[in-house]
Amino acid sequence: MPQAVEPSRHLGRLCVIGTGLIGGSVARALRAAGACEEIVGCGRNREHLQRACELGVVDRFETSPAAAAAGADLILVAVPLGAMAAVFRELADAAAAGAVITDAGSAKGSVIRDAREAFGEIPSRFVPGHPIAGTERSGVEASFAELFQGRRVILTPLAETEPEAVAKVAVMWRATGAEVLEMGAQHHDEVLAATSHLPHLLAYCLVDTLARLDDRVEIFRYAAGGFRDFTRIASSDPAMWRDICLANREPLLAALAQFNGELSQLATALERDDGGALLSVFSHAKNARDNLYLD
Amino acid sequence: MPQAVEPSRHLGRLCVIGTGLIGGSVARALRAAGACEEIVGCGRNREHLQRACELGVVDRFETSPAAAAAGADLILVAVPLGAMAAVFRELADAAAAGAVITDAGSAKGSVIRDAREAFGEIPSRFVPGHPIAGTERSGVEASFAELFQGRRVILTPLAETEPEAVAKVAVMWRATGAEVLEMGAQHHDEVLAATSHLPHLLAYCLVDTLARLDDRVEIFRYAAGGFRDFTRIASSDPAMWRDICLANREPLLAALAQFNGELSQLATALERDDGGALLSVFSHAKNARDNLYLD
Repeated sequence: MPQAVEPSRHLGRLCVIGTGLIGGSVARALRAAGACEEIVGCGRNREHLQRACELGVVDRFETSPAAAAAGADLILVAVPLGAMAAVFRELADAAAAGAVITDAGSAKGSVIRDAREAFGEIPSRFVPGHPIAGTERSGVEASFAELFQGRRVILTPLAETEPEAVAKVAVMWRATGAEVLEMGAQHHDEVLAATSHLPHLLAYCLVDTLARLDDRVEIFRYAAGGFRDFTRIASSDPAMWRDICLANREPLLAALAQFNGELSQLATALERDDGGALLSVFSHAKNARDNLYLD
Repeated sequence: MPQAVEPSRHLGRLCVIGTGLIGGSVARALRAAGACEEIVGCGRNREHLQRACELGVVDRFETSPAAAAAGADLILVAVPLGAMAAVFRELADAAAAGAVITDAGSAKGSVIRDAREAFGEIPSRFVPGHPIAGTERSGVEASFAELFQGRRVILTPLAETEPEAVAKVAVMWRATGAEVLEMGAQHHDEVLAATSHLPHLLAYCLVDTLARLDDRVEIFRYAAGGFRDFTRIASSDPAMWRDICLANREPLLAALAQFNGELSQLATALERDDGGALLSVFSHAKNARDNLYLD
């Protein structure tokens, strides 16, 4: 289906707070698409921002969110979940001035709670969002314009969210090459707990367990390609993932409990030499992965 | 360090019992290296063997291990662990005739038990071995000559194993491009339980858990690249992995218990909102993976 052609620079002035992997990649993609009049970066670290300027990711930068957001048409908050509340408090003036504000946080319930507390009520032009994309690397140096090509972005607007604000954020993400979908925040958090947060927890846990063994050097030496793939996500930013786990604690604990229940059944089957039970689980899993999620 | 040049066809007649991913890839690699006079395939399925012939993987085939092994200088048993004992029982004549016999099983304790039972005692020319290589695919169609290039093969000879037999098996694996190491069978089984068998169990368990959820289709739809990598090994052959788990049950249960202990600590930290404990585990894991096991 052909998409309507948007006029160039139609997004106006974009303010990106947090110019790491996600914020930097959004900026790069929108610049490549010619979608913004100006891109203003913001972060806590002046050196990183300077680097973002040098790389052409942003046009200029401020270290204060309020200053960076002044006069912005669209504000993307792409900071770790633990920093959302503090940033939102500094965006009160921009919100009052009618800027559309969105975020890229991996859990939506906590972001909505933070926004409600910081703004007093949810601004009608605030659109919670989450791009399902990333790599195990961090920082503006790791950012690239193609990160969102063909990936999905989930928006979780609230009852009070203006449809025009949702539309503007959707236009932004589509300009990066992403597909945009909507769902409720609670549902989003349950789905992501299962498919992303739990796997990260398990990968960190496995690598940490092995790294505590006496023969850990040998353990890693004899690891094959499957282990490399399985543990790649354990190279992700630990502070970011601490924040995500804490922010999405309840859905994550629920997913973990389901996983633990099944793992304990597998252990029992193994103790009882019950090959039939193992084969049934393994076959069901292979079938699900091969059919629902093709390589 | 330059390696001694081996005369061509120096391995003589090779018999490969089980011409799947591993057996087929060994045959392809040795053929490419010109290391054998003849390669005889063996398996239960005549059609698969016919296909192996058509693909040029083997020169000819037999469906009986005893017939295939007659006159062989070197016999590679690359069947699932659950089929080892039955194959060994058919190799009594070949063993008596002085053929070097090796295997490619992912657990070594169970293979050695099977060999002791089948042969009465461990033949002095039997060399247990395990190539740490593979993909999630199976069968001769998935085999390729480069599978072992730069990969490690672990041999676990016993006190009664002839050094010349170990040397011949090492020459075979090096001709496929692999690096050959030796360690005790028990140690091998502990290391592999940690780095391979436990990750497969966890991946199967996670995918099965998610596939049982009501919103499983959505769950898989919103899974990102990290999930795809994390669960790739859940596409591996279920019967093969049932056999491996049962064969290496004790070391696997021990590794699982260690993992469970740590996972339960992580769950407690999450319940208590203890970000410090999460960060400590995540950072330790990232550090271990980044430093001990580089991409």
